[in-house]
Amino acid sequence: MAHLSEDMLSNTSKNLLLQMTARRNVAPKRLIEPGPTEEQLNLIFRAASHAPDHERIQPWRFIVVPKNKRANLGEAFVQALKHRAPNASQVQIDAAYEKALRAPCLMIAIISALPSEPAVPLNERLISLGCAIQNMLLMAETLAIGSGITSGQAMNAQSIRDLFFLTAHEEGVCFLNFGTVASRKPARPRAPPSAFVTTL
Amino acid sequence: MAHLSEDMLSNTSKNLLLQMTARRNVAPKRLIEPGPTEEQLNLIFRAASHAPDHERIQPWRFIVVPKNKRANLGEAFVQALKHRAPNASQVQIDAAYEKALRAPCLMIAIISALPSEPAVPLNERLISLGCAIQNMLLMAETLAIGSGITSGQAMNAQSIRDLFFLTAHEEGVCFLNFGTVASRKPARPRAPPSAFVTTL
Repeated sequence: MAHLSEDMLSNTSKNLLLQMTARRNVAPKRLIEPGPTEEQLNLIFRAASHAPDHERIQPWRFIVVPKNKRANLGEAFVQALKHRAPNASQVQIDAAYEKALRAPCLMIAIISALPSEPAVPLNERLISLGCAIQNMLLMAETLAIGSGITSGQAMNAQSIRDLFFLTAHEEGVCFLNFGTVASRKPARPRAPPSAFVTTL
Repeated sequence: MAHLSEDMLSNTSKNLLLQMTARRNVAPKRLIEPGPTEEQLNLIFRAASHAPDHERIQPWRFIVVPKNKRANLGEAFVQALKHRAPNASQVQIDAAYEKALRAPCLMIAIISALPSEPAVPLNERLISLGCAIQNMLLMAETLAIGSGITSGQAMNAQSIRDLFFLTAHEEGVCFLNFGTVASRKPARPRAPPSAFVTTL
């Protein structure tokens, strides 16, 4: 494909590309206080609300884990670990617990497979959630708030499902973390379009 | 949550919110010529490349269907319809075929479930694709290019899989359509954050 001359871009497109380029995943241990203000967080969620949503079924939701519930999440991580690895060491147990304490702002993203009429496949529901998440990450970036996505084997452990009162139709997909960036890794190289686009 | 005073927003955040708000799904029949230029399309794909991608496995790809292959796609839609509804009427058959002819720029989004090491669940791969798609839709918006996502029962019909040479690990997720907006519906109301956010 033709090389894009940056000077041919409108300022709007250029700024958006810069925001997309500037965003990168920040590990929760490098996300420190202060976290987003209530107004900033509200704006991040408003960004999420503008995701495409086929048939308008709102198939996803978020649950914020405030500071006074982090210990409960830590306990749920520990239970999940003990369940899948009964011989886990104390070091591993402590590490699992501490995962709940990082990042000033932490939330779980949940997808619902509840049958809808008309039907919307789970694939499409996850695309909608992905769109919502990208809007959130980009909005955080414009607010100078760092973000990171985390997940892992505990994601749908019974202890986590119980903590968040997930229904039988729901699944935890990932955690979103927001905060001030303590240190930032350099941008990673991105695949050129030729790596993921072909023409029939 | 606190009401957000627009005047407290930085211009950057405000502009991004406006872009997100301005974007809406445009049905392919309302997407007319001209489509994106090659440079614009390249920029849209560059936007996609900035999606989060856990373990950097690049689990998705796109195949553009150029004008001279639309008839083949139309035939595949017809075969898919005849397979699932052997008694389909000629009107239905014509409608299935014509779906392939709309929108100046049409592509399929494909997800791969090919096992990776470390493992990345399909849920997360679809989130990555969703993030990529949202970046594409937003970038198109800044270029004054309309966009729409389409899907349907033919999505993974054998005729479609054959046409795109999908591997056993791959699935078609949706089609993306781009073009000039002939007519635009009013923005639909969006759910307030309180509709999809709670606190543990």
